[in-house]
Amino acid sequence: MSKVRSYISVSLDGYVAGRDQSEENPLGVGGEQLHDWVVELKAWREPHGMEGGEENASSQVVREQQQGLGAEIMGRGMFGPPGGGPWPDEPWNGWWGEDPPFHMPVFVVTHHEREPLTLSDTTFTFVTDGVESALAQAKEAAGDKDVLIAGGAHIINQYLEAGLVDELELHVVPILLGGGERLLDGVGPDLKLEQLRAVQAPGAAHLKYRVVR
Amino acid sequence: MSKVRSYISVSLDGYVAGRDQSEENPLGVGGEQLHDWVVELKAWREPHGMEGGEENASSQVVREQQQGLGAEIMGRGMFGPPGGGPWPDEPWNGWWGEDPPFHMPVFVVTHHEREPLTLSDTTFTFVTDGVESALAQAKEAAGDKDVLIAGGAHIINQYLEAGLVDELELHVVPILLGGGERLLDGVGPDLKLEQLRAVQAPGAAHLKYRVVR
Repeated sequence: MSKVRSYISVSLDGYVAGRDQSEENPLGVGGEQLHDWVVELKAWREPHGMEGGEENASSQVVREQQQGLGAEIMGRGMFGPPGGGPWPDEPWNGWWGEDPPFHMPVFVVTHHEREPLTLSDTTFTFVTDGVESALAQAKEAAGDKDVLIAGGAHIINQYLEAGLVDELELHVVPILLGGGERLLDGVGPDLKLEQLRAVQAPGAAHLKYRVVR
Repeated sequence: MSKVRSYISVSLDGYVAGRDQSEENPLGVGGEQLHDWVVELKAWREPHGMEGGEENASSQVVREQQQGLGAEIMGRGMFGPPGGGPWPDEPWNGWWGEDPPFHMPVFVVTHHEREPLTLSDTTFTFVTDGVESALAQAKEAAGDKDVLIAGGAHIINQYLEAGLVDELELHVVPILLGGGERLLDGVGPDLKLEQLRAVQAPGAAHLKYRVVR
């Protein structure tokens, strides 16, 4: 059966982005370090159209999490531009250029209506009637594949709190950001988790959980 | 060379104790679950004078962290009674009865002076002139052995922020407490960590870090 999954890199103090996110600094101060462990991996570079790359204990984790996905959901904060609010006059088409790395339908949860946007083989659909509606549409689009709740923290927290996520994998990076967007804030204490595994890898510990119903 | 170490059980959302700590509920609401993974282990039961117990992937982690310790430091919050403040008229001798499980000198950081307290082979020394003084006294007492910063969160955070800890091991438990005493709060972003290992075990993931100087 298809699942709703989320995976995200998080600092040891629980942040998925640092302070002061901006167009120049989409992940906030220090936040780029959250992805140091992944960007050198062949398993990450290949689907992003880049050559070369390393193999290590993270490779299997990354390949596994990319497999079987049929649609993604992201928050307006992740789509951008930073600051949110009404769509700007100069069109904002996300951070990812003309060929976004998603290659599947993406549903953006926002308060501001907008026509769907197709860039290469990715179509962004803007959903203004809430997280449950976005999930219903994403499931429909994904068919028998899984739905990824991609981020940021606020949207993942909302889906977790609503009990709508089946699996959560945290890539815990050995840095402290000291502030920013905090994952799991406002989610506990009622959500029950079962630890599925912990994987030691260079520059990250991969902790995977199943939500217990 | 002797080290300053800290290890502590923490919920996935970063708390080492839940909300509403009290004499009946020293670890706050839900906080006792933080120790479910350890209390059934032979490696924990034996030094606490209890029979039986399991062996699993946590056993070696627990034995290793108990080895080579010569002194401990704890905050007043961990020694109790809950609420802190001036020492009560009815003597409070900690949570651990007449034979505390420490078996080494313990230094309690507090704002309130008190004569040393000896219970069985543990002597509690109350230090009122700050964390650096407590560490100097603990190092002196430990000789060539290590010093443990035992908890709670507030005192560990202070030592981390001051750059006085060499190694930190977090036992990440698959629960969300949703509030309480948060580890690593106010510590980042300047502390640099190197991940030493991640160990998968029943009911916990053990993440160990070295502080990089």
